[in-house]
Amino acid sequence: MKIGIVKDILEANDMIAEGNRRLFKGKGTLVMNLMSSPGAGKTTLLEKSISALKDRVGIGVIEGDIQTELDAERIHKKGVEVVQINTGGACHLDATMVSQAIEKLDLTNIDILFIENVGNLVCPAEFRLGEDMKVMILSIAEGEDKPLKYPLMFHESQVLIINKIDLLPYCDCDIMRLRENSLKINPNLNIFEISCKTGRGLDVWYEWLIKKVGGRH
Amino acid sequence: MKIGIVKDILEANDMIAEGNRRLFKGKGTLVMNLMSSPGAGKTTLLEKSISALKDRVGIGVIEGDIQTELDAERIHKKGVEVVQINTGGACHLDATMVSQAIEKLDLTNIDILFIENVGNLVCPAEFRLGEDMKVMILSIAEGEDKPLKYPLMFHESQVLIINKIDLLPYCDCDIMRLRENSLKINPNLNIFEISCKTGRGLDVWYEWLIKKVGGRH
Repeated sequence: MKIGIVKDILEANDMIAEGNRRLFKGKGTLVMNLMSSPGAGKTTLLEKSISALKDRVGIGVIEGDIQTELDAERIHKKGVEVVQINTGGACHLDATMVSQAIEKLDLTNIDILFIENVGNLVCPAEFRLGEDMKVMILSIAEGEDKPLKYPLMFHESQVLIINKIDLLPYCDCDIMRLRENSLKINPNLNIFEISCKTGRGLDVWYEWLIKKVGGRH
Repeated sequence: MKIGIVKDILEANDMIAEGNRRLFKGKGTLVMNLMSSPGAGKTTLLEKSISALKDRVGIGVIEGDIQTELDAERIHKKGVEVVQINTGGACHLDATMVSQAIEKLDLTNIDILFIENVGNLVCPAEFRLGEDMKVMILSIAEGEDKPLKYPLMFHESQVLIINKIDLLPYCDCDIMRLRENSLKINPNLNIFEISCKTGRGLDVWYEWLIKKVGGRH
């Protein structure tokens, strides 16, 4: 019976996600659903990416948090359109929340819309928002066994960004093993290794993003 | 309507948790529900604590994971009784899962039962398991804003263990601010600062645990 309830919620969610997807497609907006554990670096990566790219492409952000507007304030300072969703306890964004947030955005000028999900390596992976792709971030401080223990998010994502590689000398994380474990769950993952602190690897990520948007125009 | 469903699930859960709690109390077993984001160091802290304490107190472990038995295997090597719960997708442990796991444990010889929850800073905080206390672990790599953004877990916990303090020189985390933010949410939190890697702060944690058990005999 519990499984039945979850299934109904997911089916209803998928219908609304499909509506979002059509709207995004009609406006020519590429949409990325950013997911990770708390503190893996989603907001910092957004700040860096906006600074590097906002003169070349139109960027918008939907910020998902259980409460507070801390992240939206950080993004707002970067000078792009941002809408905050406070889930009020819910541990993930769903398609209805996103459809309400879209109403507050002018998608016409937005080439890339980043949706920063609630920090949670489990539940967000189950809920489609209407995105073009799911992008997950993993901090190397979390360890190389995470793909095996939290496989759904690795399975559902098209992109894995391994962040905080500057900490590699100080953490017991075997990054080759981490890559192997990730590709075992999802052989099609695009993997980026970056450090938002030192900037290493960010250029490759930016160019990949630009190409993705270019391919849609 | 969605809220209604969650409420029913939580009420049913609380009844079963109360049954677990009575059973634990009858056996004189102190029960700690260990919660954190993925990769904050729950299993490593358990390994260290077991090695340090197993000659002084009887220890048992229930391991909660979405899938795999990796953590149970690590604990098993330490020579204590361990039961693995695989939630099969669920992002938290609930009281029913724990009540089934208890059946496989001989509580008579267990002074402290650690229940390692699924790695998730959100959902596990909502589900009582029948524990004496909730103990949360936060890696300093996650950042000082986490209490503000994920307040429920900080609010529900009696103990906050700040782990990986060896990374402080390399992370942009202000540990005093982290303490302040945590105590703003929950002024009664017992806070420990530790590094499972260097061992710093672990003795204080061990002695606190011993006192907690001693106080119950």
